[in-house]
Amino acid sequence: MVTPLDDVALDRIFRAARTHNAFADTQVTDQQLHAIYDLMKYGPTSANCSPARIVFVRSRQAKERLRPALSASNLEKTMAAPVTAIVAYDLEFYEKLPQLFPHNLDAINWFKGKPAMIETTAFRNSSLQGAYFIIAARALGLDCGPMSGFDNARVDAEFFPEGKLRSNFLCNLGIGNPSELFARSPRLSFEQACSVL
Amino acid sequence: MVTPLDDVALDRIFRAARTHNAFADTQVTDQQLHAIYDLMKYGPTSANCSPARIVFVRSRQAKERLRPALSASNLEKTMAAPVTAIVAYDLEFYEKLPQLFPHNLDAINWFKGKPAMIETTAFRNSSLQGAYFIIAARALGLDCGPMSGFDNARVDAEFFPEGKLRSNFLCNLGIGNPSELFARSPRLSFEQACSVL
Repeated sequence: MVTPLDDVALDRIFRAARTHNAFADTQVTDQQLHAIYDLMKYGPTSANCSPARIVFVRSRQAKERLRPALSASNLEKTMAAPVTAIVAYDLEFYEKLPQLFPHNLDAINWFKGKPAMIETTAFRNSSLQGAYFIIAARALGLDCGPMSGFDNARVDAEFFPEGKLRSNFLCNLGIGNPSELFARSPRLSFEQACSVL
Repeated sequence: MVTPLDDVALDRIFRAARTHNAFADTQVTDQQLHAIYDLMKYGPTSANCSPARIVFVRSRQAKERLRPALSASNLEKTMAAPVTAIVAYDLEFYEKLPQLFPHNLDAINWFKGKPAMIETTAFRNSSLQGAYFIIAARALGLDCGPMSGFDNARVDAEFFPEGKLRSNFLCNLGIGNPSELFARSPRLSFEQACSVL
């Protein structure tokens, strides 16, 4: 039985959702951060490897640590956002596979000592999880402002000095202010992006 | 106003959704493939770069072209699935930025002649779009079986011989058969995956 979700849901997570540049002064609570994670964690990853690690930068002091890494066009809006999530990935994610993928205890050996395989798997799957994060936040009624325009190496040096984690992208979070939205940019047509064989 | 979507929606896209291994014999129609794309296309990408390209492998002949690239554990279920999507990315995605990001016509020059920046951007954003694809399919009532266990180079040689596109991951698509599901694997706790600063 194929029944689409109703328009309220489809509009909320995709059709009416926008990347926000400005947010209301409303705090994002611990409870909301937990609720986002408790949805996004169910999104699929290869061998359930779940490499994403998220640092929610919310306090003034933590925001100031982020400041030097932000690009000019992302600086003010990010400093002003209620929370900025650093979506990162764990280069030792495979150490948790015995917990995460108990039906094949050999899975850890698919990765151990294979840096290219580790990097590709962690980057792909933490990106998937970053998308689940965005959709989960929207589903819960929050708005997102994801961005790649920052200095990854500086974020990593400041927040992950032990070298085990790497930043993937940043995502501002809060209640968006629709008056600060840009006009929506066009999308590729089905024919430009897809083919059926 | 922060109102979460109802449980029907949250269960459908995250909490009750599963990675399916077996599918009913029901066809996936052109209309459904278009409907998936018409949702997922709205998911955010950096500078709206939208690098994902999707090849829906549905005919018997096209499935046979995929066969030699599949890993043993993914072979039978993929050959049997109504559709297998090749989620790929376009290494020349930046050529479409004048269409996709009209408010900054210089954006094409952020990428031209910068292969590392191209690869990172295309891989990150096509992975995000692959996640939007999975969520969109679920929102429409279809089930997914995404997988990385295949020979990317073989898929690329067979389906993308001109070298412009690269495969990211595969995703089977149809109406899942719940009797063929594995038990759900555990997820990391909030404390294992997240921190709040």
